Amino acid sequence: MTARDEGADLRPIDPSPVVVLIRPQLAENIGSVARAMGNGGLFHLRLVAPRDGWPQDRAMRTASGAYRILEAATVHESVADAVADLHRVFATCPRPRHIVKPLLTARGAAAELREIGNRGLRMGLLFGPERAGLDNDDIAHADSLIRYPLNPDFMSLNLAQAVMVMAHEWWMACDETPARDMITHKTHVATKGELENFLTHLIAECDASGFLRNAPKRPGMVRNLRHFFQRGEVTEQELRTLHGVITELAHSRHQPSPEPEHGE
Amino acid sequence: MTARDEGADLRPIDPSPVVVLIRPQLAENIGSVARAMGNGGLFHLRLVAPRDGWPQDRAMRTASGAYRILEAATVHESVADAVADLHRVFATCPRPRHIVKPLLTARGAAAELREIGNRGLRMGLLFGPERAGLDNDDIAHADSLIRYPLNPDFMSLNLAQAVMVMAHEWWMACDETPARDMITHKTHVATKGELENFLTHLIAECDASGFLRNAPKRPGMVRNLRHFFQRGEVTEQELRTLHGVITELAHSRHQPSPEPEHGE
Repeated sequence: MTARDEGADLRPIDPSPVVVLIRPQLAENIGSVARAMGNGGLFHLRLVAPRDGWPQDRAMRTASGAYRILEAATVHESVADAVADLHRVFATCPRPRHIVKPLLTARGAAAELREIGNRGLRMGLLFGPERAGLDNDDIAHADSLIRYPLNPDFMSLNLAQAVMVMAHEWWMACDETPARDMITHKTHVATKGELENFLTHLIAECDASGFLRNAPKRPGMVRNLRHFFQRGEVTEQELRTLHGVITELAHSRHQPSPEPEHGE
Repeated sequence: MTARDEGADLRPIDPSPVVVLIRPQLAENIGSVARAMGNGGLFHLRLVAPRDGWPQDRAMRTASGAYRILEAATVHESVADAVADLHRVFATCPRPRHIVKPLLTARGAAAELREIGNRGLRMGLLFGPERAGLDNDDIAHADSLIRYPLNPDFMSLNLAQAVMVMAHEWWMACDETPARDMITHKTHVATKGELENFLTHLIAECDASGFLRNAPKRPGMVRNLRHFFQRGEVTEQELRTLHGVITELAHSRHQPSPEPEHGE
């Protein structure tokens, strides 16, 4: 499967916010932005006064298959034009100063965007140019600001990284994947009964081998073995393998060991 | 302030997980990974068998100031060597197959990593090479897998983007920034009393101007005005500005308008 094929299924998953890149400088970054948008289920891209014009081959090269996003992108002369048909606009802004506005984390913004989109309103996310970020006139077009909580000693984010964080939060805001799951392949997590069956086998062979011959210590040793096997989610298939290991070890104990080749 | 200065304060914020890049191909990506790590408060970087050797000037160019992370990075011959001193290892893995392991979202993994770190255990995050990702032998070194929930039609993530998502989640897992706040500059959100004071002024001038002269409609019109000004958090400074606007409009109403210059 080629990179181009990989992006062939990319399409709008609406409602989703428009990403507005304001005066972007590097075409490579525009391509990387498109890739990040595709990852997070965003599709609509608008470019305000891209420095080197549009379209750009260099953007295609970094988009890694997100061509449909770049092909559907529109170019605008001003921020006002780019947001004219939108109902709510959020501006990403690392260090807002002298501004009175609601300020959201990426996560907070994603939750609000989901809620706004569900009401049928069109929404946009403004990202500033690589070097300088949004200026005060750009920000005046926004209802709210977004600032990502990040390491205060190193806040400067690459443009595509900034879009990636927002795209991931947008996707997560309505994703229902369990935070922790157990993946199993052609098997299932063992029930306590299946585990008990294995422990009975293990302890019987331990008794037979003499490993548990110290009667006063035996209850504690059995408990330790139980604790170990109870610690994680063991699968039915793993128990079968362990049954096999125990049987084989116990069996080979009754057989004479093969002579070492070099003899003595 | 130069880019190099910007990263001068970068230092470990421990406990924090080690980022292990396995067979990374492009030095530019290693630099971008360092930048993303710095953004999210990660510092410890290990490289297993980097394709083009190490160090690399091209990594410095994309690190955007995160030089200290690159300078402290260590190179390892094998995954086993890179993780030997760690207690818990998580592997990022877009499409785990035929594997039985716990599977976490980036957010779920960040929460577990915080908990593990708080217990004084050392932890690592494995990221595979750009094109192929981690192979099954690499993954066998991990306790758990991490898979980001993302657009199933476009899952392929740039290496530095993958690190950025994890670094942002790591930072967010113990960040206390309110999801929504109101930023104010040399002012504060107005109290209901301050708002009432303004509304009294507004309504008095509306009465004086005759805007509310329709007695049956007056109560509804007053309520509409109240609803509008109650909708968001207005600041004390904005109320002072609005007081000024009302006073000025009411004052100029009593003055004769200046003659238009061209006369008639």
